[in-house]
This record gives sequence, C-alpha cells and structure tokens, in this order.
Amino acid sequence: MTKLSEIDFETALDRVESEPHSSAASILRCAETLFSTKGFKAVTTRDIAKASGKNISTIHFHWQSKQSLYEAVCRMHARQLLAFVSQTEAAIANSTLEPTQALEQWIDKTLDLLIENPAIAKLASQNISVQNNPEMVTLFEHDIQVLARFQGYLSTFLGPTDDHTKPLRLFTLLYFTIGMFTDSSLQQATLGGSIYEQPELQQQLKSFAKSFAMGLLQKESALTPNL
Amino acid sequence: MTKLSEIDFETALDRVESEPHSSAASILRCAETLFSTKGFKAVTTRDIAKASGKNISTIHFHWQSKQSLYEAVCRMHARQLLAFVSQTEAAIANSTLEPTQALEQWIDKTLDLLIENPAIAKLASQNISVQNNPEMVTLFEHDIQVLARFQGYLSTFLGPTDDHTKPLRLFTLLYFTIGMFTDSSLQQATLGGSIYEQPELQQQLKSFAKSFAMGLLQKESALTPNL
Repeated sequence: MTKLSEIDFETALDRVESEPHSSAASILRCAETLFSTKGFKAVTTRDIAKASGKNISTIHFHWQSKQSLYEAVCRMHARQLLAFVSQTEAAIANSTLEPTQALEQWIDKTLDLLIENPAIAKLASQNISVQNNPEMVTLFEHDIQVLARFQGYLSTFLGPTDDHTKPLRLFTLLYFTIGMFTDSSLQQATLGGSIYEQPELQQQLKSFAKSFAMGLLQKESALTPNL
Repeated sequence: MTKLSEIDFETALDRVESEPHSSAASILRCAETLFSTKGFKAVTTRDIAKASGKNISTIHFHWQSKQSLYEAVCRMHARQLLAFVSQTEAAIANSTLEPTQALEQWIDKTLDLLIENPAIAKLASQNISVQNNPEMVTLFEHDIQVLARFQGYLSTFLGPTDDHTKPLRLFTLLYFTIGMFTDSSLQQATLGGSIYEQPELQQQLKSFAKSFAMGLLQKESALTPNL
C-alpha cells in the first residue's frame, strides 16, 4: 500500500484553492464526486481518469494513488469545515445576537453548508462505517480535529460541564446530521425523495433539525410544538 | 458479477439455524465478523477461508460468492430483527404494562439485542453509507422490510398520523442507534472506550438512549432532567 504521508497535502490543497481550473483541482473534484456516490473501494483510478478526462499518469503525477486522492478529498473537507466554523463563529461573535439566536443561526448555516456540499456527509458516513480499515487510519486524525472544533463551539451552549451525557448529546447530533445528509436510498424511499433535490423536503428537514439540535444542546424539548 | 438471486437464501438460512455446527454456518459466522469489522470490500474470500479453516471451494459450494455471502449475512440480520420485533411485541401485548412502560421495555430489549450482536449495527452502517453501490441493491429490500416492521410497532406510540415529522423522528432514532453501535474509532476516542467492551459506558448509553427515544417518540423532552 502507498504511504499516505508522501504527499504534502496542505501545499497541494492550497494550490487547488488558488488554481481551481488546474488539472490537479479538476481531478480532485471528480474523485470527490465518485468516492461520495460509489464509495472508496468501488472507484478505480481508471474511473477517475475517465470522469476527469485526464490520463492515469497525470493522476499519479498530481495525487500519487487512489488512497492519497481519497485522503486529499477528506482533508479538503476538513479544511472547509474548520474554515466554516471559524468564519461563522467570528461573524456571530461580532453580531448583537442573543445566545439562542446565535446558536440557531449557526445551525442554519451548518445545514446550508451540508446541503451545498453533498460529498461531506457521504464521505463522513463512509469513514465512520469502515474506520477500522487500516487505509482509513490517517483520516481519523482530521475527523478528531474537526469534531473537537465543532464541540468547542457547541459546548458553550451546553449545560454544566460535569454532565456526563454531553459527549453522547454531541454524537447524537453528529449521527443525526451525517445520517440524514448521507441521503441513502432507504431514506429516499421512506421520505419520498432526496433531500438534495426536493426543496420541500429540505425545508422540512431544516426546520426539524433546528428544533432538534436546539433541544438537544439546550436540554429543552427536542421537538417544539410548532414542528 | 455473480447474480445474488441464485442461492435460495431462506432455505440456506433455515439450515444454518437448525445446524449451527455445520460448515455453512461456521463460514457464515466468520464472514459476519470479518465484514462487520473490516467492511465488505476489504474482505476477500481467502480471508474468510483462513478465518473459518475451510477451503475456498467449500465456501463457493455453500455460498457461491463473497457477494452472496454478504447478502446471506444481511438477510440473517433481517431475520433476527424481524423475529425479535414479533417476539417482543407479542410478549408486551400479553403483559399488563402501560403504553409508556411497554415502550421503555421494548427500547431496553432492542438495545440489548444490538449490544449482543455488534455486527448488526456495523453492517447497517455500511449499507447506508454505500447504498448507491449496485452490489447493495438487493440488500436495500430487506432493510425496507425491517424498517417498516419497526416503524409499524413504534408508530403506535407516535402522535397524530398527520404529523409530517414522523418519518424524520424515526430516522433520527435509526441514525442515532446505528451510529452509536457502529462504535467507530472516532467515537471510542471521544467517549473513552468501546460501548461493546466498557460496561459503564454501556449503562450510560442505555440510559441516555432510553430517555432520548422516549422523548423523540412521545414528543416530550428528548432529555429528561435525571440523565
């Protein structure tokens, strides 16, 4: 197996951000779509070559292997999420919002981020379900970093710090969010469509998620009567 | 790809149940453990042969292919879950329990079932995260069947049928349960251990899950003050 640490991911991702029309960036975006819809193992480097219109050798030149390309996509998501928390946190801190309004706005923005980037929840879901897989070990470190950052912000809204259900409440929120935005065929069949495609369903989920998260974090009712 | 419909799964699984020491049964149990810990794609027929101490040809004789072996494991879980709901429902119907007590007992028994069978949530988690994979299409039908059965029972505890959050509340419960019992390394690192191995953590989760599910189903507070 290729060592995942051979690429300088941070430099490579900086370049992708500053040169979004480069070959490296276009390969990364195709890989992101394929991995998130088909799953890491089902995608071949050949599939990525075909989807991006590049040679396999170009893919290897920029991203070495399928494994490191997968890691690059996950690291890109980690960067997006960390930047998102910092920006949103700063914007809210500079506003005149009450704590409850601030939390509500934060949740709203998080849901929009996930709706606009379907690959985030889908890959997170894959990482959680096969995390014992040795190939996934390095990803686990970014997940911890992102989770800690989210926890740090959300913890300010939680009750007393000695409450031992605190991590369980945060994981409940995490699994709820990842699950719903994984948008599985089972969910689509039951809810009557994809939450990425049906605006009405999206609004229902957003409104439900907001009340649910507020309740879970603030230890009030998880479901307010107006749902 | 091998057609998944070539095996008469129901007959094969009846035989596994009546002959738990047969080769077919032992192969199935090894496959269950490997698939649930490493993920479908990372396991080879050779791995299953090694773990069960059988020849590859014996595996093919009993279960045809890795794909049909995976389907057999998922079907076995679907059978276990369907049998569990029927038995528990009947036992509760024949008791003198109040609706709230009945629901609490049902949740308690469900959590015990999942704790005793770690592969159930782990495979469900894999199926949800890669459900668009064509190999997984037939599994989807058992999942729908199991979900419908669980929903049927739980719906009796839910509020008015015209409440459009009903499916969202049930999926919240599903994702919470599958997520926690997938017991990812991320969760283990944050909660301080595996919920399958740490009795204290297990008790905390059970108590949290009970209050959470009661709140979500009965539309009361998802987290009671005694948590």
